[in-house]
Amino acid sequence: MPHINLPDLPGIVGLLVQYPHTAGPLNGLADALLRGPSSLTPGERETIAATVSSRNECGYCSGVHGAVADHLLHQEGKPAEHARTDPKMQALLSIAEKVRVDGRSVSGADIDLARTHGADDKAIHDTVLIAAAFSMFNRYVDGLATLTPPEPEMYAQHARTIAEGGYLRQP
Amino acid sequence: MPHINLPDLPGIVGLLVQYPHTAGPLNGLADALLRGPSSLTPGERETIAATVSSRNECGYCSGVHGAVADHLLHQEGKPAEHARTDPKMQALLSIAEKVRVDGRSVSGADIDLARTHGADDKAIHDTVLIAAAFSMFNRYVDGLATLTPPEPEMYAQHARTIAEGGYLRQP
Repeated sequence: MPHINLPDLPGIVGLLVQYPHTAGPLNGLADALLRGPSSLTPGERETIAATVSSRNECGYCSGVHGAVADHLLHQEGKPAEHARTDPKMQALLSIAEKVRVDGRSVSGADIDLARTHGADDKAIHDTVLIAAAFSMFNRYVDGLATLTPPEPEMYAQHARTIAEGGYLRQP
Repeated sequence: MPHINLPDLPGIVGLLVQYPHTAGPLNGLADALLRGPSSLTPGERETIAATVSSRNECGYCSGVHGAVADHLLHQEGKPAEHARTDPKMQALLSIAEKVRVDGRSVSGADIDLARTHGADDKAIHDTVLIAAAFSMFNRYVDGLATLTPPEPEMYAQHARTIAEGGYLRQP
């Protein structure tokens, strides 16, 4: 049961409905960061979001963003194992993992490796801010003990809506 | 030296100038959360932001928000030691510290204690989201190795601008 009174909606959705004043900029940030202009594709950015959420063991966030990443990578013609086989993605995910634990642990060598594999400033910026933003979203969702539905089909359906419509129509 | 090319401006300021697309919602979130309607005063909310930033050892964020908190608590007629002496603030800061480490560690007993000392749903919501948001801001600032000025007067000056004008005119 959530720690505060919320509508009977899963994960961050109930929070966005109950607290619209902060929902506006939270949805705006997700949309700008995951769908706005970037040298990383939306599928790649959702992969970073899903990986950070999974490492933080946020069941709701990793369920939704994992499904959105699958949907978008497929649309982009990328294999499902893109994150594990692409050297640029491997370097960026390693930076994201360091940011997840402690931003100060990102080293010049981590950045150089990502650049060697084709990451530009914008890709590095977006990777760090996505990892930082999901450090927030995961804590917001779990810190208030919101509902995590067990049914995988709920995530698939919600993910399709997000993949096709972005975050500005959410929740 | 920052990990990416940024204007010669301290902390998050250079990031907000260089990446305006995400700066809009980031400033909007800070303003809604720290200055919008709440059962906590702006000084109390800045105290939570400063405490989380200090525990994360983010020198820039704790310098700025500590100075903003001091400025606002003084304006609100509250003693500088408000956070240490007010039982509601102590209970909320203990929730914020748990969220900082891992959102899932907030217990029903933590919430009950805050309610006993007068915290309502909005105060609990805002405490969790402030702790979560500064888990993001701290990582954004430190993950990209932005500049942390050593001069205390820089923070005092920047803090006065924020305390008086909020976040929507920032940077």
